[in-house]
Amino acid sequence: MSRKYRVGILGATGTVGQRFVQLLENHPQFTVTALAASDRSAGKPYSQACAWKLAGSIPEYVKEIVVSPIEPPLDCDFVFSSLPSGIARETEEAFARAGFPVISNSSAYRMDEDVPLLIPEINHEHLGLIETQKIKRGFNRGFIVTNPNCAVVSFAPPLAALDKNFGVESVFVTTLQAISGAGYPGVSSFDITDNVLPYIAGEGPKVENEAQKILGRFTGSAIEKADFTVSAQCFRVDVLDGHTVSVRVKLKRPSTLEDVFAAMKTFPSLNLHSSPEHFIDVCDEPSRPQPRLDRDNGKGMTITVGRLFPDNIFDYRFVSLSHNTVRGAAGSAVLNAELLIDKGYFM
Amino acid sequence: MSRKYRVGILGATGTVGQRFVQLLENHPQFTVTALAASDRSAGKPYSQACAWKLAGSIPEYVKEIVVSPIEPPLDCDFVFSSLPSGIARETEEAFARAGFPVISNSSAYRMDEDVPLLIPEINHEHLGLIETQKIKRGFNRGFIVTNPNCAVVSFAPPLAALDKNFGVESVFVTTLQAISGAGYPGVSSFDITDNVLPYIAGEGPKVENEAQKILGRFTGSAIEKADFTVSAQCFRVDVLDGHTVSVRVKLKRPSTLEDVFAAMKTFPSLNLHSSPEHFIDVCDEPSRPQPRLDRDNGKGMTITVGRLFPDNIFDYRFVSLSHNTVRGAAGSAVLNAELLIDKGYFM
Amino acid sequence: MSRKYRVGILGATGTVGQRFVQLLENHPQFTVTALAASDRSAGKPYSQACAWKLAGSIPEYVKEIVVSPIEPPLDCDFVFSSLPSGIARETEEAFARAGFPVISNSSAYRMDEDVPLLIPEINHEHLGLIETQKIKRGFNRGFIVTNPNCAVVSFAPPLAALDKNFGVESVFVTTLQAISGAGYPGVSSFDITDNVLPYIAGEGPKVENEAQKILGRFTGSAIEKADFTVSAQCFRVDVLDGHTVSVRVKLKRPSTLEDVFAAMKTFPSLNLHSSPEHFIDVCDEPSRPQPRLDRDNGKGMTITVGRLFPDNIFDYRFVSLSHNTVRGAAGSAVLNAELLIDKGYFM
Amino acid sequence: MSRKYRVGILGATGTVGQRFVQLLENHPQFTVTALAASDRSAGKPYSQACAWKLAGSIPEYVKEIVVSPIEPPLDCDFVFSSLPSGIARETEEAFARAGFPVISNSSAYRMDEDVPLLIPEINHEHLGLIETQKIKRGFNRGFIVTNPNCAVVSFAPPLAALDKNFGVESVFVTTLQAISGAGYPGVSSFDITDNVLPYIAGEGPKVENEAQKILGRFTGSAIEKADFTVSAQCFRVDVLDGHTVSVRVKLKRPSTLEDVFAAMKTFPSLNLHSSPEHFIDVCDEPSRPQPRLDRDNGKGMTITVGRLFPDNIFDYRFVSLSHNTVRGAAGSAVLNAELLIDKGYFM
Repeated sequence: MSRKYRVGILGATGTVGQRFVQLLENHPQFTVTALAASDRSAGKPYSQACAWKLAGSIPEYVKEIVVSPIEPPLDCDFVFSSLPSGIARETEEAFARAGFPVISNSSAYRMDEDVPLLIPEINHEHLGLIETQKIKRGFNRGFIVTNPNCAVVSFAPPLAALDKNFGVESVFVTTLQAISGAGYPGVSSFDITDNVLPYIAGEGPKVENEAQKILGRFTGSAIEKADFTVSAQCFRVDVLDGHTVSVRVKLKRPSTLEDVFAAMKTFPSLNLHSSPEHFIDVCDEPSRPQPRLDRDNGKGMTITVGRLFPDNIFDYRFVSLSHNTVRGAAGSAVLNAELLIDKGYFM
Repeated sequence: MSRKYRVGILGATGTVGQRFVQLLENHPQFTVTALAASDRSAGKPYSQACAWKLAGSIPEYVKEIVVSPIEPPLDCDFVFSSLPSGIARETEEAFARAGFPVISNSSAYRMDEDVPLLIPEINHEHLGLIETQKIKRGFNRGFIVTNPNCAVVSFAPPLAALDKNFGVESVFVTTLQAISGAGYPGVSSFDITDNVLPYIAGEGPKVENEAQKILGRFTGSAIEKADFTVSAQCFRVDVLDGHTVSVRVKLKRPSTLEDVFAAMKTFPSLNLHSSPEHFIDVCDEPSRPQPRLDRDNGKGMTITVGRLFPDNIFDYRFVSLSHNTVRGAAGSAVLNAELLIDKGYFM
Repeated sequence: MSRKYRVGILGATGTVGQRFVQLLENHPQFTVTALAASDRSAGKPYSQACAWKLAGSIPEYVKEIVVSPIEPPLDCDFVFSSLPSGIARETEEAFARAGFPVISNSSAYRMDEDVPLLIPEINHEHLGLIETQKIKRGFNRGFIVTNPNCAVVSFAPPLAALDKNFGVESVFVTTLQAISGAGYPGVSSFDITDNVLPYIAGEGPKVENEAQKILGRFTGSAIEKADFTVSAQCFRVDVLDGHTVSVRVKLKRPSTLEDVFAAMKTFPSLNLHSSPEHFIDVCDEPSRPQPRLDRDNGKGMTITVGRLFPDNIFDYRFVSLSHNTVRGAAGSAVLNAELLIDKGYFM
Repeated sequence: MSRKYRVGILGATGTVGQRFVQLLENHPQFTVTALAASDRSAGKPYSQACAWKLAGSIPEYVKEIVVSPIEPPLDCDFVFSSLPSGIARETEEAFARAGFPVISNSSAYRMDEDVPLLIPEINHEHLGLIETQKIKRGFNRGFIVTNPNCAVVSFAPPLAALDKNFGVESVFVTTLQAISGAGYPGVSSFDITDNVLPYIAGEGPKVENEAQKILGRFTGSAIEKADFTVSAQCFRVDVLDGHTVSVRVKLKRPSTLEDVFAAMKTFPSLNLHSSPEHFIDVCDEPSRPQPRLDRDNGKGMTITVGRLFPDNIFDYRFVSLSHNTVRGAAGSAVLNAELLIDKGYFM
């Protein structure tokens, strides 16, 4: 691990961009060398271009980096992208075509057949799609990999544990999502104080469709999607960080509560720098998980499951939670980059 | 309606008790003549015994009423009860046995076979159970009727509309419940600020069991429960008033979205003093219902439904909302009292 | 009061515009006949142009009114204005010049020497400035009157009571202001959840300067400002409505606590339609006023004062509170219109 | 620093007790060997006795420690106390008399003439009082030292900077205090959601009196209090941690803004383990300090000052903030213990 890779961040001034900056401070494998943001910010030092919204102050190491426009080339080995959906598709392709691996948190390419949608602990073999992608799109050195929607990340891991062991048939999820998921300024305080919003634009379809690809089987050149069905209702609640998901699941094969518990609890983590000690933690206190208390488990990279019980209509019910801007966004992308190094994709 | 009934409130200083006091101010059929509360409060004027927590000041009309101990007889024609579950069972029976009709918001008797669990618009014929009850328990003039759990009230009405027209087979509900449902002091601010609680003690079983009785068929002497199954996960969110419920429902007979919409929208209200113009309101704005904006619909007595769509696993999904301390507690009890008068039970 | 005046609202789709619409429903003296908003809204029915943010639904009476562009003439006798400061100055003058009385909630003209800054209970004689204004600006039928900043309205009334009786020398105010004061979308939820903001752009100078004009003496053609000094620190807190102000005041003449209490409590209200029964209410519960419990006192038009005590540096300290979008905005403007009718300015 | 002191915590299950447990994990100088709490908890392992309310889980190192009753002796070299005021006075004396140094966060002894009220960076020489105390009270090895009220800690440091350089004459403070300051369950969510509380029982006198002792001069055997006057109004706001204080100050000698800024910014920190790099940080972003963003500065031990400007009545105004359960409670007590070691009081 002696070599340090030089990293660019696309969308560096947004809330997820700021998480990238925070997570990459003192990272043993990465050095941030380029920060790209909209024309309004380009040309200014990051400390002036960025209204820092995370706890504490802007890390010293990025203060003087002059923000670049969002176009290739950038002075780096690869890029993290947290671009808004309006421009992500075109821009990310431009970077890939220009030879930059693009590790994206945007939704633009997640469901493209030749683009890996990664949760490294679950489906790192999907990296094989990169070969397919390079051929199909005529990329040379560049490529695109993605991480899932922030709400999907909260329940796909326990689902993977169940699917692998017992087969999943149907899943109802009801999400209670944090305000940071909407970016900044995002949700108006006048809409969420003393309130709940029963609708998040564009969220339902993502939550209903991504897990089947994540849990799909890599055939050597493509992903065969898992065949379960997800029904989603998505709510916004007045919580800063941490998406809580209520889940009911119908399995294909019978299982005991002990086996379900064990399947989740023992799902292995990886040995990458940002891997948490426990990929999935299953707690048995009756009143957990709670976003404020559990979102930072495993430095925000652990999925915390609780209230696991037999259900009276489906087989099991449980509550699953993860930190939506760490495991659900920037942290997942950083883990993907670490995985790519580990698997030799950055040689 | 010329005669005014004289009313006692058991548990008058609690949050639901305060709602009773608020709702009964200037009520054309009722005059509050007795306020009963714990020994700590008994003997003091209500204005001193009660830490008023609703908007505005204590209504003038109750300020000087001296609080009574919670035991019969009280100087009134009947009593509303919002007693804590620990003492409700014994105390409510004592009042009924002493000749007082007890209109209870407590959970103590809700599931007793001979006690009506009323939502007047849905099952006023269940009042016939009072006869059974009087015989079985040897009550003379007194009896007990109840209203449902505050979360159940949010989704039982649209369910009734569906069951009546298409038959209901299975129902998943996920509740986002307001803090006022926990009484006062109830939920610590340190537990709920920037947080969600995934557990409400004792709530799940109530939510899973009450609707079948409410929608049951009165056979002339008993209730034959409806045969659908309800699966519930209950969350507490940082909202003052208004329980929001995410619902998926599987029907017995096919239906179109239009028919489902119409079945809810046209479910008739009653002609009682506290009846709202619309029993169920179905809105089509994508981002409604919201507790802060919709809890006061119909002066807190309307059930507001929204986000009604076909579901990809069950038949339909929707979001349902009601005011948990009005329609979900004191308001329902007052409506029950109006129903009893209307049906001649107070002659 | 038989005649009904025909009213236009400038900035009708904003949060204060919506309050105007709400307060003018069923008003005995006014009928809304024109709603003006930005080009984006103009030409659409109000129900489509406006994202209604107040509790309940858009009042029926305005749903079909087609929104006009913000320029004279409008089909009405006078206009209420809640225009954003960027365009208020020019637009309000255009309406006045075109013959429309402008009753403005904007800050644009508040400190102009010839424009009344009104709290009717305190300084209705300032209406005499209208004559000066018409001459100076060459207005014919039109003119401009204003109401104060929403935070100033919270403490100017008790200050007026003190100044009139004992003379005010110096005042420290520290404000805890509600999020609705920032309009919509206004304050990002990510900025205010679990937080306090120590700065409100542009607010300090308004809070430090307006009270001296409000409490000034009308000389027959001009206002001689009161000569006290106000020091302000302004905070935003996570409260929907209701500005709470911490006040310390140094008086010119000695006074007893009883006299101070009485001076506030007995400050007379007016006999206008929107006048509250009590202009200033002084409560003695130790934990009042609170914004959620007291903002709706007098239908949002009463100023609630509490925690009135001698101070150990200045003479007295107290806490003062009012509803910032009713008494602090739309409600004050409506009261100003009622005053103008009462004093014969709309003949 | 080779030796590790063995530490007991009185009131170990409360919110401040939990902070002690959290801050002492992996502390290089201290090992927790005794946890004392009320009779209800005594005899149980800490993991069962304590409802852990801080983010994350109970530290492993304390889980199996069996909770002791709150009475001497305990198996430790000295004790931290966060006892409730009702029992603190008697119990802390009992421990001191039994030979245990008591480092207390309680208010019981703060204002006793012979008890140091410490902010180590400001008044470590007050430790000299211990000698006086031992003689007066007949203590042998034991003694009592205290740290200030959590709101006082937020503004006493910048005040010390001003007093030392320019002399302080009068100070107005208005506090916006976090809910964690009330302990657990503390403030009911029904009282603080969408609300502000204008009163904190018992807080005003502490805030008005403690700073004069903290900034007092040690004469060799007693403290001569500083002679300025503090006027306080205390509010509770819906913030988890971090007390924000609005300050206006009148100085005895003239000063420039630059000098005031420098006096605060350069106030030296100490070289103890828990000392922050900056004792006082003065920020110049217009919208800082904010509790959510700045409370963790210096791991919760830095005082963050902002909005420093000349005042139009007094000399200067500013906003000061600190973490109320770290610098304002457990963290200050730990720092006091480190100071005592450093000065040789634990030999």
